[in-house]
Amino acid sequence: MAGRKLKIGLLGCGTVGRGLVELLAKKESLIQQRTGVTLGITKILVRDLEKPRRGVDQALLTTDPDRVLNNGCDLVVELVGGIEPARSFIQHSLRRGKHVVTANKALLAQEGFSLLKTAEMRNVRLGFEGSVCGGIPIIRALRNGLVGNDIQSISGILNGTCNYILTRMTDDRMDFDEALAQAQSLGFAEADPSLDVDGHDAAQKLKILAELAFGAELPTDAVDVEGVRDITLDDVQAARELGYTIKHIAVAEVIDGSLMLRVGPMLVPRNHQLAGIRDENNAVVVRGDAVGEMLFSGKGAGSLPSASAVLSDVIDIACHKGGFAIGPTGEAKPCASDYSSSHYLRFAVRDPAAIGPVTTVLEREGLGIQSASASWAKCESGSHHVRVVTHWSPRSVVDRAVAAIATAGHASQQFVVRIAG
Amino acid sequence: MAGRKLKIGLLGCGTVGRGLVELLAKKESLIQQRTGVTLGITKILVRDLEKPRRGVDQALLTTDPDRVLNNGCDLVVELVGGIEPARSFIQHSLRRGKHVVTANKALLAQEGFSLLKTAEMRNVRLGFEGSVCGGIPIIRALRNGLVGNDIQSISGILNGTCNYILTRMTDDRMDFDEALAQAQSLGFAEADPSLDVDGHDAAQKLKILAELAFGAELPTDAVDVEGVRDITLDDVQAARELGYTIKHIAVAEVIDGSLMLRVGPMLVPRNHQLAGIRDENNAVVVRGDAVGEMLFSGKGAGSLPSASAVLSDVIDIACHKGGFAIGPTGEAKPCASDYSSSHYLRFAVRDPAAIGPVTTVLEREGLGIQSASASWAKCESGSHHVRVVTHWSPRSVVDRAVAAIATAGHASQQFVVRIAG
Repeated sequence: MAGRKLKIGLLGCGTVGRGLVELLAKKESLIQQRTGVTLGITKILVRDLEKPRRGVDQALLTTDPDRVLNNGCDLVVELVGGIEPARSFIQHSLRRGKHVVTANKALLAQEGFSLLKTAEMRNVRLGFEGSVCGGIPIIRALRNGLVGNDIQSISGILNGTCNYILTRMTDDRMDFDEALAQAQSLGFAEADPSLDVDGHDAAQKLKILAELAFGAELPTDAVDVEGVRDITLDDVQAARELGYTIKHIAVAEVIDGSLMLRVGPMLVPRNHQLAGIRDENNAVVVRGDAVGEMLFSGKGAGSLPSASAVLSDVIDIACHKGGFAIGPTGEAKPCASDYSSSHYLRFAVRDPAAIGPVTTVLEREGLGIQSASASWAKCESGSHHVRVVTHWSPRSVVDRAVAAIATAGHASQQFVVRIAG
Repeated sequence: MAGRKLKIGLLGCGTVGRGLVELLAKKESLIQQRTGVTLGITKILVRDLEKPRRGVDQALLTTDPDRVLNNGCDLVVELVGGIEPARSFIQHSLRRGKHVVTANKALLAQEGFSLLKTAEMRNVRLGFEGSVCGGIPIIRALRNGLVGNDIQSISGILNGTCNYILTRMTDDRMDFDEALAQAQSLGFAEADPSLDVDGHDAAQKLKILAELAFGAELPTDAVDVEGVRDITLDDVQAARELGYTIKHIAVAEVIDGSLMLRVGPMLVPRNHQLAGIRDENNAVVVRGDAVGEMLFSGKGAGSLPSASAVLSDVIDIACHKGGFAIGPTGEAKPCASDYSSSHYLRFAVRDPAAIGPVTTVLEREGLGIQSASASWAKCESGSHHVRVVTHWSPRSVVDRAVAAIATAGHASQQFVVRIAG
């Protein structure tokens, strides 16, 4: 085992790339001692040679992808991001029999399954621990640790920005805009936050996890996506009064043989394990038929946590030369879009005495109501809110009943959130 | 990758062994599809051939270890438990170039390091995911997922029995004896519960995790051990009033270059991530320099969770023929036994007006006091309790001050617990 060397071609030197260069330098002797492998970077692809990059050897930089890909490296690390040219780089490398490690969640969500198949055919490995939840070894857990389990469900907090915003709204009673601005100033949210706050980032991660866990390729629109923009302080307060916390939750579960994938706000009981995941942290709960329920949590992003995940894949490949892939394990499960649950509904009404007409319409549409209340004080928009907690009902019934409220003209606005339980 | 077969020799067919036989039968096609490997058991060592074992093929059973070990198997799974003959079985197998998977925490805590070295020398693998925290893939996380991290600390709830008892005391106000009896009736505690409730089981697991995480062999008495027998309902209530929950916590951390290993009761803030781990669940928090803090939790024991962990090792070995070991990574760290923290102290006194003399002695011994209170009502033992929360102090100072209280004759009994935070 001693004395093995592995030559890495690195594509991209942004946040995670620089973290990887830093870790490789700092951990060289630790890695040698633990694994007997020496890791070295042959070339680094960048867009701009002149940009200052502290701690990165200028002589390794190139703007020519060929000098990275066809330069005798054993393994390619793709940290360019986005679909093209990342896809071509990865396909080119796999087809030439090179192992690939990537943290590219957009690409994996779009065509991870076909990339995994290419890797399997060429008998090389495709590592992507860094693509979901930063340093949390959830991909490894699904591919290896839980390999003897039929996975029943995956749920979690997959987007640190949404969780940071909801934590500030809950703990510090900031409103959405204020919390978002704070997340941006701390670097937890991008200048254009829509990928995060509208739920698409979490949806990409959920699709990657679900394809691995359920061994089936899923259609690109498989995930029903909702973000956190519509959540108000009034909702946060109402959730608290009901004993819940509002979280942005991604769920993939098998219901009556169909796979259901949803990303959106959810009320979780205050003593639920996901309620305690705060700030920019991520968490994933996996339920397997043999192991039961298992939670993994930690920092879901950041230069060093993500680089640590990329490095773990690199070392795994360096130490195990054999192929290992999770491929399709059977027929693709059909995707469903209906599910049953209790729900929290909020309606904007002109008159707080609208509980009667609102609940009457809901009940006429077949929705069982557990409780209903109205705020006498007007909220910012100048309306009152009627809040309803439903009994266990199919989401389709909830949606139909909510639509009937709009048709009847009882409310100017509505908001529907699932209650975990 | 397709069509590979792996022959398993199984030593022991108790709770975990039967779980493994069950999983191998149920998951045969899932495992083939996911990995291309067919797993088969050649022979099973048992003590008593006549004992009924549902779902186990009688023809595979033998009472002769030779018929398991020297029967052309590729891999030996040791689930006999205890030190001997398990140790001889494992050494014999490793020396003959067979991979070994074991869930034997007593043996690994005693000499895991030397077994790992033997495996490395023979270029075979020793898997022991099942030895710590059942199905939670914490060994895999330390050996692979976090391999590029310097681990700064490991802490957690490693014993399900203690956690079950403390959860009942906290939530249902049962006293220790009642909670233990309930744990026993539910199968969470043995008829002789001392391995669990006196902390030794958690100490064994902590030693295994610490040796892996810090890459250094530790002396057998490295862990300072305390159990949960001395915790009273009065303590649970006092902790609650102070905003804490009492948990049985194992900690391995580096303090000023020395490694400190402790297992014992601890007050954790009610919103701390370990405070929410309930019932028989286990949890491990790992702090690495690159990934930050990460939590893993789930069922820490049981037939199928532990068998799932054993199976993951078997499949890992089946899929990666190369060697991979975490060996010593440098000089052994010295072990320390002192640490600093706030502490909760409880003294049994005859007169509730003993706050003055007690705090006077403590302060004279150099201990800073944050708060002190006394219960006017007598507790069961007929004494009053004086409760003290100290400022941040070295444990050695706390112990000296507590000893001085006993010497001065102010209290008939005392109890010291560390406060997390």
